Amino acid sequence: MDIKINGNFKNIKETYLFSEIASRVKKYSEQNPDADIIRLGIGDVTLPLPEVVISAMHKAVDEMGSKETFRGYPPEYGYDFLRKAISDHYAALGADVPADSVFVSDGAKSDCGNFVDILGCNEVIIPDPVYPVYIDSNTMNGNKITIIPGSEDNGFLPGPDLIQNPGPAVIYLCSPNNPTGATYDTEGLTAWVEYANKTGSLILFDAAYEAFITEDVPHTIFEIPGAKTCAVEICSFSKFAGFTGTRCGWTVVPGEIEIDGTKLCKLWARRQATKFNGVNYPVQRGAEAALSPEGIAACMENIAYYKRNAKLIADLLTEKNIFFTGGTNSPYIWLKCPDNMSGWDFFDKLLNEVQVVGTPGEGFGESGNGFFRLTSFGSYEATQNAVERLRKIL
Amino acid sequence: MDIKINGNFKNIKETYLFSEIASRVKKYSEQNPDADIIRLGIGDVTLPLPEVVISAMHKAVDEMGSKETFRGYPPEYGYDFLRKAISDHYAALGADVPADSVFVSDGAKSDCGNFVDILGCNEVIIPDPVYPVYIDSNTMNGNKITIIPGSEDNGFLPGPDLIQNPGPAVIYLCSPNNPTGATYDTEGLTAWVEYANKTGSLILFDAAYEAFITEDVPHTIFEIPGAKTCAVEICSFSKFAGFTGTRCGWTVVPGEIEIDGTKLCKLWARRQATKFNGVNYPVQRGAEAALSPEGIAACMENIAYYKRNAKLIADLLTEKNIFFTGGTNSPYIWLKCPDNMSGWDFFDKLLNEVQVVGTPGEGFGESGNGFFRLTSFGSYEATQNAVERLRKIL
Repeated sequence: MDIKINGNFKNIKETYLFSEIASRVKKYSEQNPDADIIRLGIGDVTLPLPEVVISAMHKAVDEMGSKETFRGYPPEYGYDFLRKAISDHYAALGADVPADSVFVSDGAKSDCGNFVDILGCNEVIIPDPVYPVYIDSNTMNGNKITIIPGSEDNGFLPGPDLIQNPGPAVIYLCSPNNPTGATYDTEGLTAWVEYANKTGSLILFDAAYEAFITEDVPHTIFEIPGAKTCAVEICSFSKFAGFTGTRCGWTVVPGEIEIDGTKLCKLWARRQATKFNGVNYPVQRGAEAALSPEGIAACMENIAYYKRNAKLIADLLTEKNIFFTGGTNSPYIWLKCPDNMSGWDFFDKLLNEVQVVGTPGEGFGESGNGFFRLTSFGSYEATQNAVERLRKIL
Repeated sequence: MDIKINGNFKNIKETYLFSEIASRVKKYSEQNPDADIIRLGIGDVTLPLPEVVISAMHKAVDEMGSKETFRGYPPEYGYDFLRKAISDHYAALGADVPADSVFVSDGAKSDCGNFVDILGCNEVIIPDPVYPVYIDSNTMNGNKITIIPGSEDNGFLPGPDLIQNPGPAVIYLCSPNNPTGATYDTEGLTAWVEYANKTGSLILFDAAYEAFITEDVPHTIFEIPGAKTCAVEICSFSKFAGFTGTRCGWTVVPGEIEIDGTKLCKLWARRQATKFNGVNYPVQRGAEAALSPEGIAACMENIAYYKRNAKLIADLLTEKNIFFTGGTNSPYIWLKCPDNMSGWDFFDKLLNEVQVVGTPGEGFGESGNGFFRLTSFGSYEATQNAVERLRKIL
């Protein structure tokens, strides 16, 4: 075939992280068939959907089965009932986000990836380590990416002071961060908002983990004055309500953002109306239920379960005087491997000596070298057991 | 803000088709408050989901509510059970489509729009009139679009003989067509497949309306020998199973298609794994149920209902000796306006004289001038009533 393909795809790094992990675990299991392996590498929720969500979805499925209540094409930006529920959710966090700036979608990953469609060829600034979608989707579009490194020194919360050539750029921030769990406080996020407004930059703020926040730090970038002229926020029901398999997220594009007289929200609206057709009706009713008082209580109970696991791990690391981020406002714990080991060496050590599986930091970017991610999505019993084993060797 | 936006968005034509229709109907209703207006412009299904689909979705929702059966992130290309069911569906049509070439998504519109992501800057050939997504998504990417006109002469089935400068191109075909209902027969589609293979072109074949086919014409481009080296097929549960509000579709990218040593299916797989996160689990179970023998029977009963409506309209046009396409293999009837009227003049005539609303052909492209679309998604009673009214004035 002689047509041209998108040549930028050749520049995307193949990641063998999870296949390499699987293959090492498989090899170990074959050599040690009786080994009781505990997985603390899970990046997906494991608790079922709350009853209030399930019953809202059942009701909506029934509506789809009756001529009088059947619904065809959904509105491309989400049903008004859900856009309003999300707007109310922001109001409860102290942020003013009008319903018509909320664009409902099938998930934060889609929105993160698709948002490049409406942008031109800009410099892109991405903190490292990082959720790979930011880098891969920009690489596909041929954008120039500048990495700013997270480190023990900055607590894996790099600030705009690390940017060597300030100027207009598209800046990706994820807080609470995947994979480090580090979370910007008001001061840290304010520095970014001020930098963006000063340089004419756009922040794409990924708030997918906001429901895990315990401390007094921003849940949304729209808590920060000035964010509405420089920030788009992408969020999700995946981690808040356990919707990883249910698929619903949203993006807030403030009406205040204009570029050359074009409102950014109009471009996103046009992109979504052209290349997307809205979200399944029962899913939107389930999402609405998750944001009801009863839904929030049930979701927070699940999150408390994961956070109890995270605390077990975090307490051990504190006790052992090991540097780590996360664990407080996040399901992730990002720790420095002892004795300057690499992430992969530490992986092998944990697997061979105590049969605990985690994720080497190398898999999330250069700055992940020598770090390691543990997650709290396992069961309490397994996490307790893993912590006892880790205590013996750390 | 000083970042660059995608300047190609400025070249997308704004369409005021449906808002203009709504405003004319509103004005008429205000002036004639007692008028009984019948809408034959509906482009969305109206019958509820079959019971077998509803019960599969209920079962899957229950699974999401229990720890033992809960499912997190779905596979990015669809669950194996659904990819296999779709592959089996092709086998029943006489086409060999392996399950691993089927990529499940949230709908045909998303896939149509997103497929440009993996292609370079190619000449794009699009028959006119046309589903606007093909043009808009390519305009967003800055591609050069060549229109080939449908007409009364070619029965709104333009062939490759209309291409003035043959060469490698991306060719969009939709059969049965939206909006004309015209459907390529084996000979017509074979001409396209041979042309594509000869010129190194890629056909993007939109088969969203295949379930409406009555005559002995291809349901899938993969019925045509040679299609696997030149064609990608996009299809959907929307029209077959009434899934417009449920959201599920798929794209077949044959493993045979290679460009410069790169398999096209690998690029699409990479795009989807990066910018998409799979389809809701209950929806996939519902889609699987729609493809079961019981599901197919129920879906076909709904389609028969719409087709009975289409036949009422088609029979009237035949009786009145008015040129039209569609109505047999499609829910759409595309007719030539009498007395060389424009589509908008005919729209006003129908609204004012018999209170029937349809869609002016002008809304679907240049070649739609002087044509008009009627649809069969209304109720049988309303369609019957509309046909009686039309009989008096045609």
